[in-house]
Amino acid sequence: MSSTYGKNIKVTVFGESHAAAVGVTIEGLPAGVSVDAEGLQAFLDRRAPGRDRFSTARKESDTPEFLCGVKDGKTCGTPVTAIIRNSDQHSSDYASIADTPRPGHADYTAEIKYGGHQDKAGGGHFSGRLTAPLCIAGWLAMQVLKEQGIGVAGRVTAIGGATESEEAMLQAIDRAKADGDSVGGIVECVAEGVPAGLGDPMFDGMENRIAIAVFGIPAVKGVEFGEGFGAAALKGSENNDAFEIRDGKVCLKTNHCGGILGGITTGSPIVVRAAFKPTPSIAKEQETVNLKTMENCTISVPGRHDPCIARRAVPAVESAVAIAVLDALLEQGKYQAYNG
Amino acid sequence: MSSTYGKNIKVTVFGESHAAAVGVTIEGLPAGVSVDAEGLQAFLDRRAPGRDRFSTARKESDTPEFLCGVKDGKTCGTPVTAIIRNSDQHSSDYASIADTPRPGHADYTAEIKYGGHQDKAGGGHFSGRLTAPLCIAGWLAMQVLKEQGIGVAGRVTAIGGATESEEAMLQAIDRAKADGDSVGGIVECVAEGVPAGLGDPMFDGMENRIAIAVFGIPAVKGVEFGEGFGAAALKGSENNDAFEIRDGKVCLKTNHCGGILGGITTGSPIVVRAAFKPTPSIAKEQETVNLKTMENCTISVPGRHDPCIARRAVPAVESAVAIAVLDALLEQGKYQAYNG
Amino acid sequence: MSSTYGKNIKVTVFGESHAAAVGVTIEGLPAGVSVDAEGLQAFLDRRAPGRDRFSTARKESDTPEFLCGVKDGKTCGTPVTAIIRNSDQHSSDYASIADTPRPGHADYTAEIKYGGHQDKAGGGHFSGRLTAPLCIAGWLAMQVLKEQGIGVAGRVTAIGGATESEEAMLQAIDRAKADGDSVGGIVECVAEGVPAGLGDPMFDGMENRIAIAVFGIPAVKGVEFGEGFGAAALKGSENNDAFEIRDGKVCLKTNHCGGILGGITTGSPIVVRAAFKPTPSIAKEQETVNLKTMENCTISVPGRHDPCIARRAVPAVESAVAIAVLDALLEQGKYQAYNG
Amino acid sequence: MSSTYGKNIKVTVFGESHAAAVGVTIEGLPAGVSVDAEGLQAFLDRRAPGRDRFSTARKESDTPEFLCGVKDGKTCGTPVTAIIRNSDQHSSDYASIADTPRPGHADYTAEIKYGGHQDKAGGGHFSGRLTAPLCIAGWLAMQVLKEQGIGVAGRVTAIGGATESEEAMLQAIDRAKADGDSVGGIVECVAEGVPAGLGDPMFDGMENRIAIAVFGIPAVKGVEFGEGFGAAALKGSENNDAFEIRDGKVCLKTNHCGGILGGITTGSPIVVRAAFKPTPSIAKEQETVNLKTMENCTISVPGRHDPCIARRAVPAVESAVAIAVLDALLEQGKYQAYNG
Repeated sequence: MSSTYGKNIKVTVFGESHAAAVGVTIEGLPAGVSVDAEGLQAFLDRRAPGRDRFSTARKESDTPEFLCGVKDGKTCGTPVTAIIRNSDQHSSDYASIADTPRPGHADYTAEIKYGGHQDKAGGGHFSGRLTAPLCIAGWLAMQVLKEQGIGVAGRVTAIGGATESEEAMLQAIDRAKADGDSVGGIVECVAEGVPAGLGDPMFDGMENRIAIAVFGIPAVKGVEFGEGFGAAALKGSENNDAFEIRDGKVCLKTNHCGGILGGITTGSPIVVRAAFKPTPSIAKEQETVNLKTMENCTISVPGRHDPCIARRAVPAVESAVAIAVLDALLEQGKYQAYNG
Repeated sequence: MSSTYGKNIKVTVFGESHAAAVGVTIEGLPAGVSVDAEGLQAFLDRRAPGRDRFSTARKESDTPEFLCGVKDGKTCGTPVTAIIRNSDQHSSDYASIADTPRPGHADYTAEIKYGGHQDKAGGGHFSGRLTAPLCIAGWLAMQVLKEQGIGVAGRVTAIGGATESEEAMLQAIDRAKADGDSVGGIVECVAEGVPAGLGDPMFDGMENRIAIAVFGIPAVKGVEFGEGFGAAALKGSENNDAFEIRDGKVCLKTNHCGGILGGITTGSPIVVRAAFKPTPSIAKEQETVNLKTMENCTISVPGRHDPCIARRAVPAVESAVAIAVLDALLEQGKYQAYNG
Repeated sequence: MSSTYGKNIKVTVFGESHAAAVGVTIEGLPAGVSVDAEGLQAFLDRRAPGRDRFSTARKESDTPEFLCGVKDGKTCGTPVTAIIRNSDQHSSDYASIADTPRPGHADYTAEIKYGGHQDKAGGGHFSGRLTAPLCIAGWLAMQVLKEQGIGVAGRVTAIGGATESEEAMLQAIDRAKADGDSVGGIVECVAEGVPAGLGDPMFDGMENRIAIAVFGIPAVKGVEFGEGFGAAALKGSENNDAFEIRDGKVCLKTNHCGGILGGITTGSPIVVRAAFKPTPSIAKEQETVNLKTMENCTISVPGRHDPCIARRAVPAVESAVAIAVLDALLEQGKYQAYNG
Repeated sequence: MSSTYGKNIKVTVFGESHAAAVGVTIEGLPAGVSVDAEGLQAFLDRRAPGRDRFSTARKESDTPEFLCGVKDGKTCGTPVTAIIRNSDQHSSDYASIADTPRPGHADYTAEIKYGGHQDKAGGGHFSGRLTAPLCIAGWLAMQVLKEQGIGVAGRVTAIGGATESEEAMLQAIDRAKADGDSVGGIVECVAEGVPAGLGDPMFDGMENRIAIAVFGIPAVKGVEFGEGFGAAALKGSENNDAFEIRDGKVCLKTNHCGGILGGITTGSPIVVRAAFKPTPSIAKEQETVNLKTMENCTISVPGRHDPCIARRAVPAVESAVAIAVLDALLEQGKYQAYNG
């Protein structure tokens, strides 16, 4: 535990890569939110594999079925559950490596935690496939946010050290793929239109809330806001955002803080970056062990894998941010009756 | 909400910088944990201000009083509450700036959130002073961890861009202080002896759990594990940690993952880094606004401030990590009866 | 929110009576728990309608499909999701009464809460049908409890005021049915083999934990433990349970406390009773209103309804109790490592 | 764990009867709520002992000190912590019985749970004294509710089986006292002015929410709503509350449901009753055991005890109900922005 996120909405992600289905239950969504099947499908397609040569050849339809909580195209206010059946499974791809944990994967730690009872095929509950139901929840959250004038958009800002042009980034992927290797990357996500006053001090700040959600995406190893780690090298006079009156309102002249001060939104865009490690599954031979014989051995991970996770992860990061922002937005609503 | 952390222990931090007291309640600590007043005091002294020329001149005794939950030097198993009375307060230092939010501080966002009812003096509930009760909870957590062979230790690895020697780092602070400015820094924290199998997939991974706690420390703008953001520039063959059999046990040959794979501990040390922004309070003149007259103005923050938060923050980061690890360790205990 | 129960396991119930499916996700179950499809089916059949003349004629197969979290007949340790497709739906039964809230039902309060977006057919998310997924979770909990020597068993102790014989109780149902009316009842549930020490003071006591779960069953209006409301009429000398040494162990000579003192289990059986109100759906004409025209009108509830809920509710009460006891049992496990 | 209640506010009660203090932290209270020290004191005096011959002679000042979260007589929006120092302690009263658990008390179960580390004097964290901080939180909740037109009021409806007149009830107490015995009682609490639509289906219904809080009061063994256990003996036609249009609004003609249908408030008053067992501490000799020698023995509980808890418990029940209603009221606020 726990595959559940949130205090004011609750997003519970379930499923394994090679089980009957993956899915998600979202509690606490307002009633009456429009669920436009085409819009959702278009969003899910952004993370789906098999779209181009830069991603895994595994093809998945990723067509969600809403089991409950949606009627006549609108949310009911009660729990919404949607599932995606798993279809294009090649479990045999994994059978041969069930006892040899793949370096960089959760195979070994899951073995320790679940005593061998975990579903080993395709990474089980640890698979990147679990970002599909996360994206369903994220897309639903975005529909509510949109009505409140809030937009969430992500993009890849670095791949394998290349940061300047998309061409350079794609070349880094191509090089890695040719080597039977993979590369990491950075995804930046910006939430615009977020009102000032969301989030709380201490452990419920917007940074904490967003970090929980973003670290929920497999392969994320770092999360930063605004100047982030760069702020550690700055002076206060460089990093502080001056205030000014603009059009009769208080504004920040810069946004080094990434839209968050003291855990609470400033009204400027929230800017968050997530560091994705390189895809652990690579064709290159790696050292590992056989957990049954307890002997050293080598492994070359079969199957069809993304040479770079970061690109397909963009909608997952957007989803994580949208869910966190909606959770905080609902929290704020609690107090609006008292701020008359 | 919420100034509460944890699922298996609950740490609730309360207080304001210039209120009667700051304090903490810890629920869920095992009964019988020794509380050695001297050891706690020594730990708190590491974060106390006024120790040398590199930190604020504000002197605080930081002597905790245990109100309940501890009897005859041992925890009772029931909620432990400890408070630290605030004594050396110069509220008048802040009276003149109550309506002019300090850039980089939570003054403005708190004003929006609490409609002016917040305690403005000294940053109120957003003050770094709240790390004192956090450290009480952290120290108690460390006592339990110690009995289980787990140690948590942090250190500053960068200040104002200087990373090589302590001398270079202290010079960066001296330069900033001389300029009426401040500098940021990075704190690295390592937890050794952590058993494999702690933490969970998705939103309750060790990264998520630790990130919530560490982002709860004021001024933290980034959190990363193992290679962290650096992993984004690596190849899979560089970043993956090979497994090997050592002394009949499965080990990782390297620790690029920072002791965590799939949200679950590997048995190698947990390595986490937190980026601290430069202290927002600086003597240098900054642009801000007057919230009453809604006019632009300037501010030079009076009071006695640390030119660099990162150094005093080390025990706070250790505390945050210790609390998160203990919370996960207790969680694991739930299942040990079933793994026989 | 929230259709989620638990701290150490999390049971999330979703679905509506006439949606595609009802279902449940259980997080935090130990890995390796055997899932015997036949045993589960036999348990679900106890609550299924259409078994005899005392229950609704609506026939439901109630055959669960496990979507994930179970592999080769054993739990994986990751979230378990099971759904039951809804089949035998007569939504048209309800279409005519969509705007006339049925007295004693949640129709009106759901209308207020969800602004008309709720799924109105068959009570939607408020239907007794939601006890089917609850029973799946309860049965899984019982499998874990059984391995620890804990058994949970319920029975009806009163129907429509009749308490003495089963015959008298069934006659009360028959009489009500003949009148186009319904009757309430009381279900008593006993958990045997529960170790001493489960539960906590204040808000996490076993009474609180069990009450949350049992009040989660539709139509429950009262929950009591041991002597319960009867204790209010007793003297301390009558109600206190004396201690004695038996076979070298501390035992309670009586069990007026229902196995719980100070929120913590005594080691004696937990005894809990739930009061079920009479089925609100009755053929008899009742006064209600039309929410569209805002005029008074009458209603005779069509459809096939149980004249007494209490009988079919027994496995639901057993499930609620089992889930609560398992949640507390896992909590206790957290501390066993520290109790030498 | 856990001595914390609530989702939208969090009330954490801490302390032991004979520790330095008892206290409470309330998170999530709106900012700007007036804290009138005299009003609070008057409320606390209603539960304070030593007021008349019907309650314990132990005198406590019960004067709360607000440590933080309140400034200039108003809440700040940040955590509010208040403590009450324990003064009139006669720990020696208990020293002689430390190893002989008092029948009906938590002494034995606490011993099992905390391995002897619990604070044994005066019931420790299990003492009725913990209702004092609960009442502080309850009174604060009532101040917010009052502004929203919601009032909460309780009264004793039965003592030792006597239900008709206050005189009969007081006679029951006198008789018990004269016998060195005690009696139980029932407290009914009504919340008026509660808007329709509060609470949720399943586990977050108003019944569940209130039951958690009320079972948090020591000695409560049953909780029921509206007709409660009486509903089990009624017919649907008797128990259902008909709807009617009154003054252009939908109303319930009766209130058998106690203001709650499907877990959601109807707009009619919430009616809840709590069954209090007789005070376990009695002068009469009782059988118990010595936990050190593991031999049977007898005990006559020394100290000054209430012959009937129910009377002093009225403000505690009011507090529990007020806290639960406020928690649900804030929850509702989350969705008001979306309800046009």
